[in-house]
Amino acid sequence: MKRREFFKSATAITASAAAATTLAAPALAQSNPKVSWRLASSFPKGLDTIYGGGETLAKYVSEATDGNFTIDVFAAGEIVPPFEVVDAVSAGTVELAHTVGYYFSGKDVAWAALSAIPFSLNARGMSAWYYHGGGLDLTNEFFAGYNIVGFPCGNTAAQMGGWFRKEINTIADLQGLKMRVGFAGAIMTKLGVIPQTLPGGEIYNALEKGTIDAAEWVGPYDDEKLGFQKVAPYYYYPGWWEGGPTVHALINRDKFNELPPAYQSLLKTAAQATSNDMLAKYDYVNPTALKKLVAAGAQLRPFSPEIMEASFKAANETYAELETSSPAFKKIWDSIKAFRKDYYLWTQVAELNYDAFLQAQQRNNAL
Amino acid sequence: MKRREFFKSATAITASAAAATTLAAPALAQSNPKVSWRLASSFPKGLDTIYGGGETLAKYVSEATDGNFTIDVFAAGEIVPPFEVVDAVSAGTVELAHTVGYYFSGKDVAWAALSAIPFSLNARGMSAWYYHGGGLDLTNEFFAGYNIVGFPCGNTAAQMGGWFRKEINTIADLQGLKMRVGFAGAIMTKLGVIPQTLPGGEIYNALEKGTIDAAEWVGPYDDEKLGFQKVAPYYYYPGWWEGGPTVHALINRDKFNELPPAYQSLLKTAAQATSNDMLAKYDYVNPTALKKLVAAGAQLRPFSPEIMEASFKAANETYAELETSSPAFKKIWDSIKAFRKDYYLWTQVAELNYDAFLQAQQRNNAL
Repeated sequence: MKRREFFKSATAITASAAAATTLAAPALAQSNPKVSWRLASSFPKGLDTIYGGGETLAKYVSEATDGNFTIDVFAAGEIVPPFEVVDAVSAGTVELAHTVGYYFSGKDVAWAALSAIPFSLNARGMSAWYYHGGGLDLTNEFFAGYNIVGFPCGNTAAQMGGWFRKEINTIADLQGLKMRVGFAGAIMTKLGVIPQTLPGGEIYNALEKGTIDAAEWVGPYDDEKLGFQKVAPYYYYPGWWEGGPTVHALINRDKFNELPPAYQSLLKTAAQATSNDMLAKYDYVNPTALKKLVAAGAQLRPFSPEIMEASFKAANETYAELETSSPAFKKIWDSIKAFRKDYYLWTQVAELNYDAFLQAQQRNNAL
Repeated sequence: MKRREFFKSATAITASAAAATTLAAPALAQSNPKVSWRLASSFPKGLDTIYGGGETLAKYVSEATDGNFTIDVFAAGEIVPPFEVVDAVSAGTVELAHTVGYYFSGKDVAWAALSAIPFSLNARGMSAWYYHGGGLDLTNEFFAGYNIVGFPCGNTAAQMGGWFRKEINTIADLQGLKMRVGFAGAIMTKLGVIPQTLPGGEIYNALEKGTIDAAEWVGPYDDEKLGFQKVAPYYYYPGWWEGGPTVHALINRDKFNELPPAYQSLLKTAAQATSNDMLAKYDYVNPTALKKLVAAGAQLRPFSPEIMEASFKAANETYAELETSSPAFKKIWDSIKAFRKDYYLWTQVAELNYDAFLQAQQRNNAL
C-alpha cells in the first residue's frame, strides 16, 4: 500500500463509521494500519542472544504501533531453512529475515564483506561505517539486486577463535588441521587448514571422536552451552575472522515500499535500537560465561603473532582475488578499508589506553 | 493521559465524526494522538554530534508517528539554561531534556555515577549495564525522586585528556596546575591540580593568556573547532574521567505517564537507537579530526603510568567518601563496579586482541 492509498482507504473507513459508531475501533486502527509480517531467522532459539534480536525487533515495532504492526518470529528451519532466508525474502515468501550476510557469500562474496570478513572493522567500527560512512547506501544498492532492503540489526562483538584439541603455536601446527569454520575457511586453506562444514549440533561429537581437530562457534556465552571445553580444551582468541559481525534485518523490497512511511521509519529505528541491545546483551553475558568456562577447564590461549601475521597476509591475498571476481565486493570492501585505516588510528589513542589501563587493574585485582 | 483515557477520548472524537465526515482527519490522528513536546538540550548547536542526538531522537519519534508526536529541540540556553534542565523537567516546564548526568552532581553525586565518573565503564560497558545489567531500573528508581523518567540517549565514546600548555610527566608537574575540568576536578585536587570552571567559549583565550594551564573539552571532532592546538599544543590521552559518558533523555514523569503506551515504548526505542547513532557518528568523525589536529600542530601524549596510577588511587579514595555521603551513589556505583570487574576481564580477551592487532597493522601502515 502506498502512502496516498493508505490515507485514502483510511478515510473511507472512517467515513463509513458515520453509520455505526461501533466501527470506531477499526477506524482508529487506520492511522496505524494492521500489518502482519513473518520473520525467518537463520538462528536457532538456543542461541538466545542472536536469535533474540529478531524478537527484540518485533517487540519494539509491535509496542510502538499498539500491536498493529506485528512480526511473527520463526527460528531457523521452522518455516525457511536457515541458509535460504535470502531467497525467501527476495521472493516475498516471508517479508523479512534476521540473518548474517556471510551465510550467502556463495551468491556473491560481497554478502560477506557487509557482515564480517577477517580483519575488518569491530562492532563499533561497522556501526560507524553503516550509519555515518555511507554503508547503508552502499549495501542497499547491492541488496536492491535481490529485491531486498536491509538494515543492521545486531552484532555479536568480537568472537572467540574457537576450540582446539591441541595447542597450536606455529604455521606448522596448522598443517592438515581439520577445523569447523565458516567463511574464513577459504583463507585458512592457504595456511594448511582443512576447513570442515558441520551443523552446530554435530560439533561436540566430532571433536570428541577426533573427526575434527578444532571448531569455532561464537563466544563464551553461546559456546558454554555446548560444553566444548570437555573435548577440546584450548580456547583461542581472538576470532580474527569475526571482529564485529553485523547481523541484518533483510526485508522484501516490495513489501517495504508498500508500508506507510511511518512504519518504514519505525522498522529502521527499531533495527538500530536492536543493534544496541544485542551488543549490550553479549557484552553483559559473555564475562560471566567466560569465567564459568575457565572454571570448567577451558584453557585460554592467544593466537601467536606468527599465526596472526600469516592469517592477515593470507586474508589480504584472498581479498585481492575477490576484488577481481566481484565488483560489489570491491566497492563495499574499498569503502570499509578506507575507513578502517583511520578508525584504527583513532581507537588506539583514547579508547585503547582507557581500556588497557582498566584491564591492567583487573589483572592486578584492583577493580 | 492514561492508556484507558486515551482510548476513551479517541472513541469519543470518532463518534462525533458521525455528524461530519470532514472530521475524518482528526479521527485518524487519534491512533497516533497529537503530542507536541519541547526538549531542552544542555548542549550548544556547535557541538553538532552531541546536540544532534536530541534532533535524532525527535526525528525518529516524529517519523514513526507520521508527524503526530513532535519534539521541538532547543539548544542550551534557548529556553532553559544548560545546567538547569533537570529542574525544568522536574517541574514540567519542559517535557524533556537531553543532557549528561554529571552536570547535576551538585544535587546528588549519583547523577555523576550514572553518566560518567573516572575509571568507570566505557561506552559499550555502560550500555550493557543499562540494558542488561539492571542499570535502567536502578537509575529510574533514583530519577523518580526528581519526578523524572530517564533513558540513555547517546554516548561520546572515550574522551581525550585535554590540552596542556606544557608537557606533564609526573605528579610534581601537576602541582598548582590550573585546569579547566568538570566533575574530575574533585579528584584532581588531591593530585595538586587547581580545577577551574569556564564556559567552552572562554577556554581558548584563557589558555592563550596563561590564565589557565590546561583544559579538557571532548574529543578530536569537537576540540578541533576551537583551535586549542595553537595555544596549548600537548594533547593528552586518555580522558580517564570520561571513558564512555552516557547522555540521557530525561522526561517529566507525569508527562511520560500521560503518553499512550505506544508512545512510551517508541520514546525508549528511539532513545536506544539514538545511542547507537551518536556513538557511530563520533566514531566516524573523530579519526579525520584527529589527523587534522596533528597536521595543525597538536602533539599527542599519553598520560604517564605515574599519573594514571595516582589518579586511579585518588578516584577510589573519593568514591569511598562519596559512598558514605550519598546512598544513591553507593547503590549505583556498587552495581557498576561489580560489572566493571568482569567486563574488563572479558574485553581483554577477544576484543582487545582483535583491535590491538589491527592497531599494530595501522602503525605499520599495513591497513
